[in-house]
Amino acid sequence: MRTVQDAMDVLNGKWKIAIISALCCFTKRRFSDILTDVVGISNRMLSKELKELEVNQIIKRTLVDTQPITVHYELTEHGKTLQPLIEGLAAWGVVHHKQIVGK
Amino acid sequence: MRTVQDAMDVLNGKWKIAIISALCCFTKRRFSDILTDVVGISNRMLSKELKELEVNQIIKRTLVDTQPITVHYELTEHGKTLQPLIEGLAAWGVVHHKQIVGK
Repeated sequence: MRTVQDAMDVLNGKWKIAIISALCCFTKRRFSDILTDVVGISNRMLSKELKELEVNQIIKRTLVDTQPITVHYELTEHGKTLQPLIEGLAAWGVVHHKQIVGK
Repeated sequence: MRTVQDAMDVLNGKWKIAIISALCCFTKRRFSDILTDVVGISNRMLSKELKELEVNQIIKRTLVDTQPITVHYELTEHGKTLQPLIEGLAAWGVVHHKQIVGK
């Protein structure tokens, strides 16, 4: 049960899974892109959540020396191992939606 | 992404997954048993979380006419469909623990 908690410590909260899902769909993504992908998240909250995901080695942040400087986010190899789990959650979400609403 | 959120709405928070994991291991479980299984949860919080899981049709609450009256909790058929997901989370938790601590 401890290991399930280890996983949930990383994924918990309202936004983490949504951010990881957004990054699953693209190779690299800018802050402003993710802000559009994850509907309803604030600038400040996205910044906080991205930092936590970076500390947990789920995402990688890269500075690109353009004019103006841009910042890219992408899933790390470790972060990509979450993909099957997120697909599993999405599939279960469909089942659950049908269970609750569909009858 | 909406369907992932549907799943996370049910599973989010500090305790839900731990409670479901505890119920995965047993056919039926009393309130006081779950209180022991889920280390650190308060009486009041367990009561709140169990109610939410019941509303989402993940668990079933049964009154048993014993002396004194006892209350059993068990996973519904719908709740049991979460089992592979929880096993997936546990397996990923092991990988993540090694990634962060293991080097």
